[in-house]
Amino acid sequence: MIEGVILTGLDEKYDDKGSVLHMIKSSSRNFCKFGEIYFSEIVFGKFKGWKLHKKQTQNICVPVGRVRFYLYDLRDYSETYKQASIIELSRDINYNLLTIPPGIWYGFQGVNISRSILANLVDIPHDPEESIKLPELNKFIPIAIDYEL
Amino acid sequence: MIEGVILTGLDEKYDDKGSVLHMIKSSSRNFCKFGEIYFSEIVFGKFKGWKLHKKQTQNICVPVGRVRFYLYDLRDYSETYKQASIIELSRDINYNLLTIPPGIWYGFQGVNISRSILANLVDIPHDPEESIKLPELNKFIPIAIDYEL
Repeated sequence: MIEGVILTGLDEKYDDKGSVLHMIKSSSRNFCKFGEIYFSEIVFGKFKGWKLHKKQTQNICVPVGRVRFYLYDLRDYSETYKQASIIELSRDINYNLLTIPPGIWYGFQGVNISRSILANLVDIPHDPEESIKLPELNKFIPIAIDYEL
Repeated sequence: MIEGVILTGLDEKYDDKGSVLHMIKSSSRNFCKFGEIYFSEIVFGKFKGWKLHKKQTQNICVPVGRVRFYLYDLRDYSETYKQASIIELSRDINYNLLTIPPGIWYGFQGVNISRSILANLVDIPHDPEESIKLPELNKFIPIAIDYEL
């Protein structure tokens, strides 16, 4: 795994009227500060990315469907410089919290059902000055996005 | 509307790869403190409730499906003492944030698709001592739950 990226198991409290799915508490090990929470839908096969946050930490889980995350470390001071990770989160099989620290390039793709949904709790409210973007195909990130799902 | 209950419109940023749905920011008017965020699924027709929080404030939106909320005010100091409200939130038609202050009896019911999902950001992490429950049918809350959906 890329240095600083953390996967944390999350609880599901089963109920036949509908389960309760935990995400994050103020007392959780990974929680540092509340800036904002939002949802991002992702259509099957589509890729959103690439993005890099300079200051903001992402705390992501997938309560609906299944999402593949592509991560790439271009921090020249990192022990995992130029390494990649591909991680799938889902409601059913891998209900985990993915913590992505600042400085990691990431993108994500819907890999199940028509629309998956991720929830993202970030420590700083959205600020366009704080992130940078690259197109899906670029010369800096040598990760093949799998379009043959 | 019951005194202290607030509905706040939420933004959807449309994207043909999947929309971004806002929920709450640290700078939002209704935000006071972060305690926890979790999801609750609700099966079509089923009712979860009744519950009353003595200290905790609920901030709820429905990113999947459609959920009907039944609220009842038994605070004898309230201007809306013994009044009820029924509010439906959904992803498509009524994407709002419902803020329920402490002291209100509430329950909710899935009214669309097989499973709807609500997200709830609360200001105090879960504490079973802080809430009280009543069964679906009880002699204190004179609201008819609609099972003929």
